[in-house]
Amino acid sequence: MSSSPAPLRLGIAGLGTVGIGVVKIIRKHAALLQARTGRPLVITAVSARSKDKDRGVNLSDYAWEDDPVALAKRDDIDIFVELMGGSDGPAKDATEAAIASGKDVVTANKAMLALHGQPLALAAETAGRVIRFEAAVAGGIPVVKSLTEGLAGNEITRVMGVMNGTCNYILTRMEATGQGYNALFEEADKLGYLEADPNLDVGGIDAGHKLALLASIAFGTQVNFDGVALEGIQRISIDDIHRAADMGFRIKLLGVAQMTGRGLEQRMTPCLVPADSPLGQLEGGTNMVVLEGDSVDQIVLRGPGAGEGPTASAVMSDVIEIARGTRLSTFGQPATTLQAAPPAQAATPAPYYLRLHLADKPGALAKIATVLGNEGISIDRMRQYDHSENSAPVLIVTHKTTRTTLDAAMAAFDKTGVLDGAPVAIRIENI
Amino acid sequence: MSSSPAPLRLGIAGLGTVGIGVVKIIRKHAALLQARTGRPLVITAVSARSKDKDRGVNLSDYAWEDDPVALAKRDDIDIFVELMGGSDGPAKDATEAAIASGKDVVTANKAMLALHGQPLALAAETAGRVIRFEAAVAGGIPVVKSLTEGLAGNEITRVMGVMNGTCNYILTRMEATGQGYNALFEEADKLGYLEADPNLDVGGIDAGHKLALLASIAFGTQVNFDGVALEGIQRISIDDIHRAADMGFRIKLLGVAQMTGRGLEQRMTPCLVPADSPLGQLEGGTNMVVLEGDSVDQIVLRGPGAGEGPTASAVMSDVIEIARGTRLSTFGQPATTLQAAPPAQAATPAPYYLRLHLADKPGALAKIATVLGNEGISIDRMRQYDHSENSAPVLIVTHKTTRTTLDAAMAAFDKTGVLDGAPVAIRIENI
Repeated sequence: MSSSPAPLRLGIAGLGTVGIGVVKIIRKHAALLQARTGRPLVITAVSARSKDKDRGVNLSDYAWEDDPVALAKRDDIDIFVELMGGSDGPAKDATEAAIASGKDVVTANKAMLALHGQPLALAAETAGRVIRFEAAVAGGIPVVKSLTEGLAGNEITRVMGVMNGTCNYILTRMEATGQGYNALFEEADKLGYLEADPNLDVGGIDAGHKLALLASIAFGTQVNFDGVALEGIQRISIDDIHRAADMGFRIKLLGVAQMTGRGLEQRMTPCLVPADSPLGQLEGGTNMVVLEGDSVDQIVLRGPGAGEGPTASAVMSDVIEIARGTRLSTFGQPATTLQAAPPAQAATPAPYYLRLHLADKPGALAKIATVLGNEGISIDRMRQYDHSENSAPVLIVTHKTTRTTLDAAMAAFDKTGVLDGAPVAIRIENI
Repeated sequence: MSSSPAPLRLGIAGLGTVGIGVVKIIRKHAALLQARTGRPLVITAVSARSKDKDRGVNLSDYAWEDDPVALAKRDDIDIFVELMGGSDGPAKDATEAAIASGKDVVTANKAMLALHGQPLALAAETAGRVIRFEAAVAGGIPVVKSLTEGLAGNEITRVMGVMNGTCNYILTRMEATGQGYNALFEEADKLGYLEADPNLDVGGIDAGHKLALLASIAFGTQVNFDGVALEGIQRISIDDIHRAADMGFRIKLLGVAQMTGRGLEQRMTPCLVPADSPLGQLEGGTNMVVLEGDSVDQIVLRGPGAGEGPTASAVMSDVIEIARGTRLSTFGQPATTLQAAPPAQAATPAPYYLRLHLADKPGALAKIATVLGNEGISIDRMRQYDHSENSAPVLIVTHKTTRTTLDAAMAAFDKTGVLDGAPVAIRIENI
């Protein structure tokens, strides 16, 4: 009698786009997956909200569970694949149940891990189980593996990324079409690009979750989403996009995480980046992550940030990793050794883009320049545009300053009485 | 008594730039590496040609072996780190000795694996040992891991890459300075960018080795360097670089591997790529690899292709992988299951760039156009430049054709008697 290797049995909770993508890969590539892992990968059971919905694939070979917690506890699964989403509720309950009943977990759930990653990792590691989450960050880009494994010999100095395809779609379409934010928000909505709660996308929350997960791996710290300084793209105007372009920049919702002497800095905010940089050239829904380490210098990873195939590809990479017997700590080192990282109270200094509208009064520009000088902010470049009606748009690119100093200057602008409307300030990342 | 985890003991053969880079990382980041792997990483013994050379680091803590084979056999090492280079000779002897004496192997040696990868992988897997080689391909870019692990759920459809920094340095400096190939070859030589045998770089051999390794992982085939169609950059003229730029292209030494109905196609040749594509924008010594799979679509990885820090970072990623207990087959699936892949006898059709010099005779251009028409090659774009002396440069971009058809046309050009000198033909990859 010859012994065949035992199959690895999957239970999949959540049969939306990504879940169905995973089912398709396991069916289509059974031989390829067995060649690469040394054992058959099989789906034993599935769970979703509606059993009767036509999902375009035949699920009748798999046991059905209405309750994902019941799926997670089944004796005939080895890996619980959590693709339901949502930081709490059924996803978290089922993940906890899976760990408690001895299952490994593969998840695409950035919200759950950003908010509960530390206790979940502790629970899994105490139980000798693994939680893998490649699909939670930047879709098909293998960035979790690149950071956890590929760059593991480095002290990571900085992680940056454009990691919300919907925001990048809206921003690049604003520039291409000349339309404003609201029109493109509606277009993205019609195309199905927005989460059920659109603020997760345009408010930067979804991308902030992803950044917090990468920061934990990069710096050996407990995941701390509350420490991410968040700002969405809702207030980016078509004027800012055009003016930034005039000066050689594009506006991106950019995440930056770095360990500083003042604590862990995590930001997910609109930034100006050089138009000819890799980040500046990023179009549409594509994601890009930049990883910097003391030995490797800089690695740039680009790829599709969402969609059935790319996200399912990432889920499968985790399933295959477990099938091959690789067992990594959730955040790259045991959760018991992750440090609490107090957030930096202020961002590192940077140049800023300022857009003001000056009232048509003598000496207006001088007053603004004086305020900046008084605050110790020096001007790198300045452009005044044609008067439109009673005010003139003025663009200023400052030399490096802190946001605190800049906020003080903007408060002082108010008192000069020469501004028409509120000034706009956007950080510049020269990368 | 508390038990500490056993240290992982390294023997390093080869103390050039990369070897010393590895020593530095292990010393500088002892705590970080132990946190990430759960055990201390220590160097037990080293070997190099000259014991007395000052390498800028103190090696007196490590046992010294003049003979790398003796190092490989030592009982007090767990991993043999082969950083000597060379496809045969001491590197191969010592690697075989390491496997035979139960050691895992981490190597940066693309030549050895491109020529002997299959028997070495078989030997290692029979002995229950692993061979890892992240540093052999594209320096600090974690491309071996991305392909073997990150994209393991995909049927890989194509692998492309600019993987020789020296060639890319020469080509981008030619364009920037307007100097010819020979001048920039000398500059690269003075900067120490060239291998001892420069043909390894400029002849495309080194990059071809890397492509053959990636193709094996991508397509589950036995590594077959002989099947790589190789062409170096020595005959690229400054004229071609300028003319290509006029038409929106840049010239790169580009590797392409894809499985076709006609067999495995592997090419490492100069190609025109769109100037505004990620590959077209690649400057200097930076490497870029493009991985395409049926689910993930396309992933682009960019980073430093050489140098002490980046290459040592890649070596360390393999050491850490082994320290964490991960054990992968050399080429992503057991060597016994890798298929022999007959090379495709002809490259897939592509557009071509043709540069000709037409003699100043009536009807010259018509004769050339007639030859192309007779061979079934249609013209996408054509430019004729000012006459210089007695001939006029003509550029033609063809629609897709095969190299065989194009070679027939170029042979027929000869018979028209209207050409001044030999025509230049370079493949265009529209990516």
